[in-house]
Amino acid sequence: MKIICNQKILAHKIGIVQKAINGKTTLELLKGILLTAKEDRINLTGYDLEIGIDTYAQAEVIEEGEIVINARLFGDIIRKLPDTFVEIETDSDNNVYINCLNSRFKIKGDSAVEYPKLPDVNKNELYDIPQDLLKNMIKQTVFAISQDQTKPILMGELLEIGNGNISLVAIDGYRLAVRASELSGVEEDVKVIIPGKTLHDVNGLLASEGDFIKIGFDEKNAIFIINETKIITRLLEGEFIDYKKLLPREYGVRAKVNTKELLNSIERASLLSQSEKNNLIKLSIRDNSMAITSNTEKGNVYEEVSIELEGDYLDIAFNSRYFLEALKVIDSEEIFIEFTTNVNPCIIKPVDGTKYTYLLLPVRISSNI
Amino acid sequence: MKIICNQKILAHKIGIVQKAINGKTTLELLKGILLTAKEDRINLTGYDLEIGIDTYAQAEVIEEGEIVINARLFGDIIRKLPDTFVEIETDSDNNVYINCLNSRFKIKGDSAVEYPKLPDVNKNELYDIPQDLLKNMIKQTVFAISQDQTKPILMGELLEIGNGNISLVAIDGYRLAVRASELSGVEEDVKVIIPGKTLHDVNGLLASEGDFIKIGFDEKNAIFIINETKIITRLLEGEFIDYKKLLPREYGVRAKVNTKELLNSIERASLLSQSEKNNLIKLSIRDNSMAITSNTEKGNVYEEVSIELEGDYLDIAFNSRYFLEALKVIDSEEIFIEFTTNVNPCIIKPVDGTKYTYLLLPVRISSNI
Repeated sequence: MKIICNQKILAHKIGIVQKAINGKTTLELLKGILLTAKEDRINLTGYDLEIGIDTYAQAEVIEEGEIVINARLFGDIIRKLPDTFVEIETDSDNNVYINCLNSRFKIKGDSAVEYPKLPDVNKNELYDIPQDLLKNMIKQTVFAISQDQTKPILMGELLEIGNGNISLVAIDGYRLAVRASELSGVEEDVKVIIPGKTLHDVNGLLASEGDFIKIGFDEKNAIFIINETKIITRLLEGEFIDYKKLLPREYGVRAKVNTKELLNSIERASLLSQSEKNNLIKLSIRDNSMAITSNTEKGNVYEEVSIELEGDYLDIAFNSRYFLEALKVIDSEEIFIEFTTNVNPCIIKPVDGTKYTYLLLPVRISSNI
Repeated sequence: MKIICNQKILAHKIGIVQKAINGKTTLELLKGILLTAKEDRINLTGYDLEIGIDTYAQAEVIEEGEIVINARLFGDIIRKLPDTFVEIETDSDNNVYINCLNSRFKIKGDSAVEYPKLPDVNKNELYDIPQDLLKNMIKQTVFAISQDQTKPILMGELLEIGNGNISLVAIDGYRLAVRASELSGVEEDVKVIIPGKTLHDVNGLLASEGDFIKIGFDEKNAIFIINETKIITRLLEGEFIDYKKLLPREYGVRAKVNTKELLNSIERASLLSQSEKNNLIKLSIRDNSMAITSNTEKGNVYEEVSIELEGDYLDIAFNSRYFLEALKVIDSEEIFIEFTTNVNPCIIKPVDGTKYTYLLLPVRISSNI
């Protein structure tokens, strides 16, 4: 193999495929990036047997071929080279020669023969989805994925497509986050569970603005195509919780509140309880205002925000962390918070009609707090 | 005590005095900030019994008084409050009430009676020194301070003033960094050893541009006055190494080289040796070029930079880290590297006449590397 490629572009592409490489693997080959030089491209692949990322850069290919190079070392070297053209050449002993102006490296590579093949996604159809929409959907739900290894299904998110809609759902036993949106041009029903790690990786590769990306599925795998980059991930197997049953149909009390004001108040109210186990805050909902209070060993805090109330007065307590994580990802200026009783879940949803629903369990408190 | 103060200014001042507070101390009182309200100021003090920082903010003092408040909690609260006026009030039980718009905190403070008094610096004279100069002097030497607890004197820097000069010196047994500068208006000779921690703190408070600051000394303490902030530090006791004896008087070989080019080349040459113990790189000095090479298990690298040579060819090896740390803090475009033999220290100094001298011990290598 012998190629010439631009340093900046190559460094950028290495950064992309490194997301799929698990530095802790004991399989030396999987710590490497597979480089494949063919026609006018150098193709880069990283794969941890769960998630594979594949991308390419334009290159002058003097001799086609392939090699595996330790990702960290290769990335460190390419990133430190000057912004000009880099020549990469291999010999029959899998030595890799990297030359750039006055720099000459010789490092040991590995034969590409044994490198595992990424699964083919036998996709019936690829859907177009705006990248900023997908990025936002992931951002608004991914933090609610369970970290509990004993419930592997909940360590992923349910992705549903059908009836002109797409939705992404995460549940961890304490809260539930659903973000939906219209999606035109849908012809089949999709219901798959995507690992949390994949969603984090995909999110890292999505831009806040930009073109559509493509997604596709088969029985076992999903594929995300973002410009020149393909991410292929194994799906989680099993049945996701029927989350729609968990959502209350009606509410008795509804408060309309400014998102940012509430976020700031709860952040301050949590300052005294951060070392305590459940970050307890109490909401006292009255006519035009909601008090947020916290009582701990360190002292106490009283915060007040203006609300518009429908329904009765209510006192209810929450783990502030679960409240804050949702408020931080809601871009809408105002939210509704809907309650039934102080032992039933509440629902947070944007006033502006964005299809986001966040369900949150309260903490039971004795009445004399 | 009862005061009203601007939130942003107060938050900034808390950040300053927090540098002197060691969160790991077992003395609860020393985890606190001493607040003293008097006349039209709120004074803030942090002190770990080695370094004390004292600053103030303008405030409306409704009732004079003093209190100690846990620095972390107080900082967290004030930083999270909105950018407006904050009212702080205490009662006779040392409760602290912090009120700001719709936020009301009540936290437990401590009586200020037991708070230790910062030493008075019985200064004969205060010297004016430009802050950017002092900042640069610290930056160019502080990394060469010893981390060896068995040599406490070397965990500080020698500061000398005399003959119209100021100099700062750090030694750790492998290298020696001296930065000097002219300083007018000096009337006495000063020779003190300032703890490394203090220099880090002072550096953090100095701006890259701005006015003069003041420094002063007595037998046991030094004081730095940066605008409204005073830093008082205990000096290290003992005799510093007579470093001038260590500097070679002459050289046999001298290479003139571009600082940034050499930095980049050595950074790349070190990539293969980073996991090895002494980050060995070899310099091969020839007529118009210097080769930088490294041979490790991972492979080998050859780098070349242009030089102007005086003297003979030379092969010499170094720990690249010690080389890099100096190159990173030299702002001058070109440096001289002066050698005697390949087992004697070399000297790095800027070509532009900046009074900076960095001495560096080579690593002995067998001739067949």
